Amino acid sequence: MSAINPHQGVNFPKGFRSAGVYCGIKKPGLLDLALIVSDSEASVAGTFTQNRVQAAPVRWSKQVVSGGRARAIVANSGNANCLTGEQGERDARRMATLVAERLGCDPVQVVVASTGVIGVPMPMSAIEAGISLAFTRLSDGDDRAAADAILTTDTFPKRASLEVQTPDGTVRIGAIAKGAGMIAPNMATMLAFITTDAAMDAPTLQACLTEVVNRTFNCITVDGDTSTNDMVIVLANGASGVRISERALDAFQQGLYQVCEYLAKRIIRDGEGATKIFEVRVEGAASEEDARKVARTIAESLLVKTAIHGGDPNWGRIIAAAGRSGVPVEPNRMRLVMEDIVVFEQGQPLPFDEQGLWQKLQAEEVHIRLSLGQGNATAAFWSSDLTAEYVKINSAYRT
Amino acid sequence: MSAINPHQGVNFPKGFRSAGVYCGIKKPGLLDLALIVSDSEASVAGTFTQNRVQAAPVRWSKQVVSGGRARAIVANSGNANCLTGEQGERDARRMATLVAERLGCDPVQVVVASTGVIGVPMPMSAIEAGISLAFTRLSDGDDRAAADAILTTDTFPKRASLEVQTPDGTVRIGAIAKGAGMIAPNMATMLAFITTDAAMDAPTLQACLTEVVNRTFNCITVDGDTSTNDMVIVLANGASGVRISERALDAFQQGLYQVCEYLAKRIIRDGEGATKIFEVRVEGAASEEDARKVARTIAESLLVKTAIHGGDPNWGRIIAAAGRSGVPVEPNRMRLVMEDIVVFEQGQPLPFDEQGLWQKLQAEEVHIRLSLGQGNATAAFWSSDLTAEYVKINSAYRT
Repeated sequence: MSAINPHQGVNFPKGFRSAGVYCGIKKPGLLDLALIVSDSEASVAGTFTQNRVQAAPVRWSKQVVSGGRARAIVANSGNANCLTGEQGERDARRMATLVAERLGCDPVQVVVASTGVIGVPMPMSAIEAGISLAFTRLSDGDDRAAADAILTTDTFPKRASLEVQTPDGTVRIGAIAKGAGMIAPNMATMLAFITTDAAMDAPTLQACLTEVVNRTFNCITVDGDTSTNDMVIVLANGASGVRISERALDAFQQGLYQVCEYLAKRIIRDGEGATKIFEVRVEGAASEEDARKVARTIAESLLVKTAIHGGDPNWGRIIAAAGRSGVPVEPNRMRLVMEDIVVFEQGQPLPFDEQGLWQKLQAEEVHIRLSLGQGNATAAFWSSDLTAEYVKINSAYRT
Repeated sequence: MSAINPHQGVNFPKGFRSAGVYCGIKKPGLLDLALIVSDSEASVAGTFTQNRVQAAPVRWSKQVVSGGRARAIVANSGNANCLTGEQGERDARRMATLVAERLGCDPVQVVVASTGVIGVPMPMSAIEAGISLAFTRLSDGDDRAAADAILTTDTFPKRASLEVQTPDGTVRIGAIAKGAGMIAPNMATMLAFITTDAAMDAPTLQACLTEVVNRTFNCITVDGDTSTNDMVIVLANGASGVRISERALDAFQQGLYQVCEYLAKRIIRDGEGATKIFEVRVEGAASEEDARKVARTIAESLLVKTAIHGGDPNWGRIIAAAGRSGVPVEPNRMRLVMEDIVVFEQGQPLPFDEQGLWQKLQAEEVHIRLSLGQGNATAAFWSSDLTAEYVKINSAYRT
């Protein structure tokens, strides 16, 4: 497998083109509409927000994924098309139809994604003009414009690509993503669009994606506020001529994991106001679900997040967060390691070099490892620190 | 029922005395040990933290409550006696024994509570001296010293008292509490000690307390980090000569509710860095559990808390938080009211005077009412805004 290339995204696999344009939703000069097209019909898979409140494009794109075949993804930033009623449903379908007409395909083969303000009708004439413009700009060269066009308060674009050698031959995977940014008045939205020139049927692609997303994008948290618009989409167009058989599946999935893990960590790194990221690894749990619950509770604890911000070796907060996770943990069986230093074991704090640990906790990436002593299951969560800047960004009035 | 008196606490009911002294756990000049004594044996009831990690004094005091009878409460601030192993258990028992010896009662009739730093052995010689000193200071006059001695980063003491006219006669209820403050390196701890001169058996007292706590202290949140040391204790010594019979129970419970609600709101108002408080009332839920879940998710949402801080009429965040609460809500049935202005109904945002609502949201107390349209159950949660000051307080290194 090649190393991750952070400077190329969805255009890296064969047979994909993309564009990013300004159509007038955001302020002039900011790209706000992205288009990704596969030259041929592709298998499609996707995972979507678990929030019961789902934006119109989420409902539309679920339909696309259930059909299993797609030609394109159209995504806009600046307006989430969420809580916009019947009109919102019509607007999402219209976006798909406009793209489908150009490609001569069925509208239900066009994924639609939106991120931005909630409860405001979509500016459809701007979108319509933007889609026309995007078709004139489609290119298989640099895909930075598409990566830029899906951003909201993100401070940098997120791209990743990779070549994967499988027993069946070499395939390519590319992706762009946006993370925890907000355009007032809404919430962090996570979007990721992945392309690959591997040939795969939709159910196999979906199984791969679900497995990978559960261990990457679903294991990151900035503030626990899952959005109404989150989605991860993958298109597999087969342009490499390599069909992924049973024996090549592991290699492919490993490649997909690399790309998703890289982007997930980049998203956390770019969390609103974040200055550092930390990993919470929970080991020795009775089940993976237990491990995930404990890891998530620690990763989302405001007291842990602020302690990490301050570089404070405040292990009591970590143990206490585990205690309220809903998992029947036993302090007497726990072992807590911060940056390779054991600070707590079997119900007892251990003496440690506090100044030394404090120094280690100043790093941009911090590691916490908690063993529960109840079994063999593990899980990891990535989180960002909580800063005064986060509060500033999110309490600003939206005019 | 008389109005709440915020200037008198546990000494207001007949037959109780208290003291607050400095014994050397905190910095000189700060009171750190409180003692509350009933002249006669009292019925006792209590509720405790749900955290699986529980401090030694919590385990001890659960034993006291299960015995049903108590003479005194001894509480210290500055050290939580949590995650301190076997020694911690011995220290909690020793605190009870020292008080019991003076009173000539069984140690298991003395409630023990601690709040402060986690994982540090208790300074028992200081505590021992403090208990001796406290007995010399016991008074039935002003109880401000006891209220002060249980504070950590609270910025003001919290007292409340009330006279209750019941069909059986007049009884008094008094209380002191501490809230969401932290002494590095730990978490918010909530303590409340309630006295009453009503005569009641322990099981009835416990039933009353549980009911009231579920709707007051258990419905407030500053940062969702439940502590290892939380407890609410009530002593009923019967010194009024009034035994609460079946017909007087409602009046008594209503009085207890008033005192607890007042203190719960004071605790939220004094949340770390808080500048305002807000109530989230959820109506029309299928069950009270559903209502509570939705209310809590909204009350704890960082995006809602920061919006409230900024006075931003950001209703999209509220609906989105409800959507991820785990309750199968339906946006199309929801109705959201902020400060008496309907902003969302049946899946659609309503036009409203945004500037006018913004102005109303500048108040120190803000009200949010969300109807789910799924049934008749309701619940309310109180929360504080999230501020840069919260981050500052909690990220400061603890030296």
